[in-house]
Amino acid sequence: MAVKLGPNRYGKAQTRLVHVVKDGPVHHIRDVNVSTSLSGDMEAVHLTGDNAAVLPTDTQKNTVYAFAGRHGIGQIEEFALLLAGHFARSQPSIHHARVEIEEYAWRREGPHSFAREGGEVRTCVVHRDRDGRASVVSGLKDLVLLNSTGSEFHGYAVDEYTTLPPAADRVLATAVEARWRHTGGTSSYGSSYERVRRCLVEAFTGTHSRSLQQTLYAMGERALATCEEICEVRLTLPNKHHFAVDLSPFGLANDNEVFFAADRPYGLIEGSVLREDAPDAGFAWE
Amino acid sequence: MAVKLGPNRYGKAQTRLVHVVKDGPVHHIRDVNVSTSLSGDMEAVHLTGDNAAVLPTDTQKNTVYAFAGRHGIGQIEEFALLLAGHFARSQPSIHHARVEIEEYAWRREGPHSFAREGGEVRTCVVHRDRDGRASVVSGLKDLVLLNSTGSEFHGYAVDEYTTLPPAADRVLATAVEARWRHTGGTSSYGSSYERVRRCLVEAFTGTHSRSLQQTLYAMGERALATCEEICEVRLTLPNKHHFAVDLSPFGLANDNEVFFAADRPYGLIEGSVLREDAPDAGFAWE
Amino acid sequence: MAVKLGPNRYGKAQTRLVHVVKDGPVHHIRDVNVSTSLSGDMEAVHLTGDNAAVLPTDTQKNTVYAFAGRHGIGQIEEFALLLAGHFARSQPSIHHARVEIEEYAWRREGPHSFAREGGEVRTCVVHRDRDGRASVVSGLKDLVLLNSTGSEFHGYAVDEYTTLPPAADRVLATAVEARWRHTGGTSSYGSSYERVRRCLVEAFTGTHSRSLQQTLYAMGERALATCEEICEVRLTLPNKHHFAVDLSPFGLANDNEVFFAADRPYGLIEGSVLREDAPDAGFAWE
Amino acid sequence: MAVKLGPNRYGKAQTRLVHVVKDGPVHHIRDVNVSTSLSGDMEAVHLTGDNAAVLPTDTQKNTVYAFAGRHGIGQIEEFALLLAGHFARSQPSIHHARVEIEEYAWRREGPHSFAREGGEVRTCVVHRDRDGRASVVSGLKDLVLLNSTGSEFHGYAVDEYTTLPPAADRVLATAVEARWRHTGGTSSYGSSYERVRRCLVEAFTGTHSRSLQQTLYAMGERALATCEEICEVRLTLPNKHHFAVDLSPFGLANDNEVFFAADRPYGLIEGSVLREDAPDAGFAWE
Repeated sequence: MAVKLGPNRYGKAQTRLVHVVKDGPVHHIRDVNVSTSLSGDMEAVHLTGDNAAVLPTDTQKNTVYAFAGRHGIGQIEEFALLLAGHFARSQPSIHHARVEIEEYAWRREGPHSFAREGGEVRTCVVHRDRDGRASVVSGLKDLVLLNSTGSEFHGYAVDEYTTLPPAADRVLATAVEARWRHTGGTSSYGSSYERVRRCLVEAFTGTHSRSLQQTLYAMGERALATCEEICEVRLTLPNKHHFAVDLSPFGLANDNEVFFAADRPYGLIEGSVLREDAPDAGFAWE
Repeated sequence: MAVKLGPNRYGKAQTRLVHVVKDGPVHHIRDVNVSTSLSGDMEAVHLTGDNAAVLPTDTQKNTVYAFAGRHGIGQIEEFALLLAGHFARSQPSIHHARVEIEEYAWRREGPHSFAREGGEVRTCVVHRDRDGRASVVSGLKDLVLLNSTGSEFHGYAVDEYTTLPPAADRVLATAVEARWRHTGGTSSYGSSYERVRRCLVEAFTGTHSRSLQQTLYAMGERALATCEEICEVRLTLPNKHHFAVDLSPFGLANDNEVFFAADRPYGLIEGSVLREDAPDAGFAWE
Repeated sequence: MAVKLGPNRYGKAQTRLVHVVKDGPVHHIRDVNVSTSLSGDMEAVHLTGDNAAVLPTDTQKNTVYAFAGRHGIGQIEEFALLLAGHFARSQPSIHHARVEIEEYAWRREGPHSFAREGGEVRTCVVHRDRDGRASVVSGLKDLVLLNSTGSEFHGYAVDEYTTLPPAADRVLATAVEARWRHTGGTSSYGSSYERVRRCLVEAFTGTHSRSLQQTLYAMGERALATCEEICEVRLTLPNKHHFAVDLSPFGLANDNEVFFAADRPYGLIEGSVLREDAPDAGFAWE
Repeated sequence: MAVKLGPNRYGKAQTRLVHVVKDGPVHHIRDVNVSTSLSGDMEAVHLTGDNAAVLPTDTQKNTVYAFAGRHGIGQIEEFALLLAGHFARSQPSIHHARVEIEEYAWRREGPHSFAREGGEVRTCVVHRDRDGRASVVSGLKDLVLLNSTGSEFHGYAVDEYTTLPPAADRVLATAVEARWRHTGGTSSYGSSYERVRRCLVEAFTGTHSRSLQQTLYAMGERALATCEEICEVRLTLPNKHHFAVDLSPFGLANDNEVFFAADRPYGLIEGSVLREDAPDAGFAWE
């Protein structure tokens, strides 16, 4: 039997880093979760356990902390690019680095006091290789949105297993997971994030929806129309079902006011919207 | 061998209810998680399986939805009192009802559009019995607070297992779980909640802390000093350790700027602060 | 306003300890999660931040590891008693110690190789005070049991909110959380655990159930009848609902064969069974 | 601006199905979690909200239950193939179906009584398209393995951020997530699963490891060498770090006996092992 090593990578996942920047008595806080993955000439370690090509995952963790101390974090995409650029050049055996960062938001409660926001998490995934190629995907997750009206669902295909009645008015709710690919270098990842995020929210709330797919496309389209620096948006939208409770046994009407918020199962709508002239994605989505 | 039935209760846990209130085209949303528990003459069902005394948990769930449709929710304490009063009188066999509610906050994004706040969860636990006795405990959980300075820890007891160095300056962070007992009927649970919450946050951020115990007491004391309607505050404060990373191997100083946010183990400080003339708690904390 | 400190305790939660015992080339593994809490003369630290009475939670963690190294773990109740006895005597300010341990089971896959069992978790909570009083509560959690028949539910109280149809045959499933109080010193906590656990399982599977309350009582009664060393059993039994799916729209019968396993809401049955001559529980259940 | 719809799919996630098969008084139980996704001519629904091409996710859920009632489940790969084949032919607009199933194991405790095993979860992902192409990937996750010796880590690359000391003897632990691709139709998915699983465990426990990468490759190689029906194995192996606690401050040695089991960060090793003549994977891994 002849077998071989296929695609592989290794790294340190979930390095939890809190960075405090001091501006005299006023402090600023950044709270991130960094995962790094390296790949390259890794046949030896897999086949024989020779670790000469392996920069330890412990070293990767140290590097995350040291770079935060030396350079600060800046926008998470910038910090990820900095780390990925370092790792992709760190050893002859390492050809490629992938850095994924989650950022948790805090709001100020005093000069050096903060409360953690619990809503959406900002994300990015950055790749860099030894030849200077790079990709940046920004994103967010856990952004829970709900329209209490302005959503219908009818006119769908029907087969012998269909029992769903058509809905002229329903609650539409989802937990947005969105990722968007930057076309090239973006000058300001912070303002770009805010603009894309705003487009996603406004398209969700502003679209009279006949299906969650329609809303998904509107969200991606709005972001691409407004934000020139990105070329593709990928969305994962669970349909968080809210079922109107039948109150008629109790002599009560329910005009879409009382809902059971269900956990499982749930609809799951996944899709990509992209520019017709979007450049090849390369390794961006890996 | 002679055995007997001890304390017991039964009910429906985690009935997920979303209530939409329509003010013309402008909607309002309430999102709660209701758990009900009943107790009373329950020997027969335990010893012989005779269910005559048992109001089904399914009925309890139905009642939650029906009451929301008929009465709305109002403040969660009011809805819990309404439900508990109903259940405590619903059957001759039922003597006592406990209703626990969690509420999840949403912020407005449009006339009928909302985004879920992800931070703290508002809570209450209400008891009512057949003789008209009642108790109300309000609370919150998952309120994550952090001071990036203004916290010390030294002068502690030392034994042969102590290796911790004293800290003149450290990060202090916690996820507040607080519950407070109302002395009697409170006229406005909503404004009371806001005031207690504000006291907890301000005491945390405003206390120069020599220990998390000191901060805990200050939080309870502040709430009691400000809010006459409550008589006891119970706090559970995990010490969410943030360890300054040693960057000296990399030739870098770390003046409390780069931290590892640890998961486990964690310190856990639990305590109660109460008025000296607080009335007996009765079943309030059960 | 006069306020005071009420009940309080502090400690280190979730110290994760894996202990390897080497018997030549054959190793044995123990995997536990230890939480310690101390209480005593703690007014000063709460009111003024004077830490002189406070043995740091970091020291508590160190003690857990050092005691494992010096004494091994033995049965978790024994290790908890050893730790609690140490802490209750460790400082003049400390009067009382509570130690809670969870144990995760592994099965052998080789002389020094193991696979983690994923089922129930064994637990204990031990208290010791400075005057030599002690209590031991053993337990388990996450033991998921299911009877696919032999369960009914009917004859229950009915009110205007009742829509549940009576069930002559249903699935009964629960995730057992059980804790049992030892009367005094138990000579062998390991064999006691196995016997109690076996009673709980056999009473669940062997009881033709007309309600989950009946099953709960049978489980406690069986354990008390068989195991002389314990005097009280407390059970928390969620009713993990399995709803038979209506397949009639598809021309199919469903004779209790196809079920939807629901998450929320769920019934929750809680109760205690104890000997009529059980000694006072004191602080055992705190 | 010209934008377009990219890859997309939609379906019902996490349909929880328990199937009871009755062999007289002896029952058998199957417990699965089914997620279905369909794709095809979905431009209209995304661009205009025209749902004519959309078979509702509610219908997909119904179909899962109806097929269980009509056909039973069999091996999860077979049930997934049956469902995927149905969906891929169900509507002119649907060209492709993906079905993912998780199975939870139960052990028998009586003729109709069961206890849920809590260890690894068996998984599969099946694709079928309208042209008859199909792929089957089987797998498992949450299989936690540990070797208490027989693992080293040294000889790795060192840079200015490396502080890790070499280890001549360490604990090696992981939570195996493995997926393996079948070359064609496999006659017995049940026995295939048992053989692959056994190879993974034996290669983990039987390999004297100089790195987790080496162990990963050995696991894949062993499975491919033993199981002719599969052509590729993909493994995701977190390195669940167990750090030996320094007990020297307490006058104690620690010869790799007392460990702190850490949560985050963790090493993460991902890789594929495949036959040199493995056929093209097509859509198998999507």
